[in-house]
Amino acid sequence: MSEAIASDFSFKLLVGSGNAARAGRASTAHGAFDTPCFMAVGTQAVAKSLSPDQLRASGVQVLLANAYHLALRPGAEAVAALGGLQEMTRWRGPMLTDSGGFQIWSLGRGAANGAREDGGRLASRPVSLAPAITEEGARFRSHLDGSEHLFTPEGVISLEERLGADMMMCLDECLEYPAGFDRARQSAERTVRWAQRCRAAWKGRNALFGIVQGGSHRQLRVWSAERLAEMDFPGYAVGGLSVGEGPQVYREVLEYTLPALPVDKPRYVMGVGEPEDVLTAVELGADMFDCVLPTRNGRRGQVFTRGGKLRLKNARFRTDRAVIEEGCDCPACAGGFSRGYVRHLLAAGEVLGGTLCSAHNLRFFTRLVGDARSAVLEGRFTGWKRSALEPYGSA
Amino acid sequence: MSEAIASDFSFKLLVGSGNAARAGRASTAHGAFDTPCFMAVGTQAVAKSLSPDQLRASGVQVLLANAYHLALRPGAEAVAALGGLQEMTRWRGPMLTDSGGFQIWSLGRGAANGAREDGGRLASRPVSLAPAITEEGARFRSHLDGSEHLFTPEGVISLEERLGADMMMCLDECLEYPAGFDRARQSAERTVRWAQRCRAAWKGRNALFGIVQGGSHRQLRVWSAERLAEMDFPGYAVGGLSVGEGPQVYREVLEYTLPALPVDKPRYVMGVGEPEDVLTAVELGADMFDCVLPTRNGRRGQVFTRGGKLRLKNARFRTDRAVIEEGCDCPACAGGFSRGYVRHLLAAGEVLGGTLCSAHNLRFFTRLVGDARSAVLEGRFTGWKRSALEPYGSA
Repeated sequence: MSEAIASDFSFKLLVGSGNAARAGRASTAHGAFDTPCFMAVGTQAVAKSLSPDQLRASGVQVLLANAYHLALRPGAEAVAALGGLQEMTRWRGPMLTDSGGFQIWSLGRGAANGAREDGGRLASRPVSLAPAITEEGARFRSHLDGSEHLFTPEGVISLEERLGADMMMCLDECLEYPAGFDRARQSAERTVRWAQRCRAAWKGRNALFGIVQGGSHRQLRVWSAERLAEMDFPGYAVGGLSVGEGPQVYREVLEYTLPALPVDKPRYVMGVGEPEDVLTAVELGADMFDCVLPTRNGRRGQVFTRGGKLRLKNARFRTDRAVIEEGCDCPACAGGFSRGYVRHLLAAGEVLGGTLCSAHNLRFFTRLVGDARSAVLEGRFTGWKRSALEPYGSA
Repeated sequence: MSEAIASDFSFKLLVGSGNAARAGRASTAHGAFDTPCFMAVGTQAVAKSLSPDQLRASGVQVLLANAYHLALRPGAEAVAALGGLQEMTRWRGPMLTDSGGFQIWSLGRGAANGAREDGGRLASRPVSLAPAITEEGARFRSHLDGSEHLFTPEGVISLEERLGADMMMCLDECLEYPAGFDRARQSAERTVRWAQRCRAAWKGRNALFGIVQGGSHRQLRVWSAERLAEMDFPGYAVGGLSVGEGPQVYREVLEYTLPALPVDKPRYVMGVGEPEDVLTAVELGADMFDCVLPTRNGRRGQVFTRGGKLRLKNARFRTDRAVIEEGCDCPACAGGFSRGYVRHLLAAGEVLGGTLCSAHNLRFFTRLVGDARSAVLEGRFTGWKRSALEPYGSA
């Protein structure tokens, strides 16, 4: 076990412990962020259609990018030549790169709903692109030009270090749902061995997160979490959720996985999700989240409000002068854009419609976890959660 | 001849007269603007992909919209129910609506290059959509749903008044290029008769502009300009340019048309254009311009700079850390976005790439005419124009 610790990263738990709602604060070389934290997905080093200013005005603290996508385009050396991710994107705040494990998997299979990164137009890839996973790593063909690539744990760490995000993820092997015990065990064990190799290759400056896999098998999840905990990562992630397992299995997995992780390190539940999924994870002791829902649904005109979801393309909004959500401080609502105008933009195929809805949705999710944080700090999380989810038909 | 004068509109000429470069200032109910003025095209009540904040940061003073497009979607009564164009778009500055004469024409024929509004995806319309022009008005089918519509001069004025822009255009009959004398005479005479009907139907609050047609026939252009001048409009436009006539004919038309218009009213050269076209018109005494070039070319990654045009998709920009144009204060350059990052966004199909290029290009054109204005005010326009156009291969 290496002694290296990410020099620029720290995490402080303010309230809570291992298996109940917590509030904390993380610090990075590019600024701090409060937890629970909902991060914006920026797969190709941009949150779709949004400028960094618009992201900030939407309450976003952390921006994600995807090492797989950026390795293929524009290439890690181009990102490095442009000053690294933060300098390149002009995002003046913490960033996190996902490793690409999920993308290598989803490219071969078509991305699942609620997937943790924007698989979007990749969903109809031919099966011949399915990756070849060996102990060495994942061999796959680029979805852009068919060129062959090999992602090894060591190579991915070097890639992510060149990209230069504050937080980066180990290479993991993802799993279809449902997966039987033997298949899940193979994947969980390989992911742990790959995490060891990532840990050994890691230079220690950017905070490295280990990823727990193991499907919906308690024994495998707990075993994985314990092995990763022994490796002493700056942070931990739970992968392989939001792949169709349903709310009950989702909750169960978090119930037995999160307590097996170190109390004093941030826990990131990847690719999650709907408001109820996020708050369930917060309730069970998770700290970080990301999902394409705010931007993907926003582009389609679906907006989240404290009163529930609205489909702004609906004809009933045609002459609605109200803003998307009364009292919201997002760029769309604070800017005074009416539902009727946003509907017109969406109907006319004008990009600004999706931009406004995306900004609003990001603000909805950053406010949701911000409100959750306040409730945790004030010891009233359970009651708050129930009322927050009432319009969403679950609690 | 009616006595009504637009109550909320005024124009003051500061330097210049009828047939040489001028500088002025116009005032509207929604703020003033300096002339020469390059206006942003916002056909569907939005400058493609740009928020009002981004427009303002690009130096835009006046936003256009198109009565034809808005009549079909979302409909004039919807715009009115949403508070009118300014309230609906949240553009806190002067607006101008084009009448739709050009759109009715271009829908039937496919939009020409440099067309005065964004005909974009309409270029491949079947010829069966060609409008039927009669003395009564233009009968045409919607490009959206095939429904039949009749635009009369009176109906268009009522439509534009309901939309509520500060400035609005008469209905005109556009013309293919080249057009013989008889055909051009018929169109010019009808456009003048329609202008009389528009003038009579006009309530007088929004500033109404008459449009000079007449192809490339001096006699018709001068006759049209004089007839319109007799009707005493708050402003005048020259239509039917940038339809393939080439720079020499373009200059000639302006040379004999502009001096036939009242000296003390703004002159708007519609749908123009390349930097050299705009500055030629300024040189000959024009005050207002609009063109899709900044946004349409911007979406394709072509940017205008004082040193010439750049195609940012070009591989040589892949690792270029410079901003699009050193010293530019547009949202893209002032935001520090590198050419390399913008190229990545464009290559990856990320909308923000086109947004940044569009904002930069709008700033280029608003700065170009702003610099022209300063040169006029300081009596050094001719020399300034020559050096400004040097990188564009003409002067």
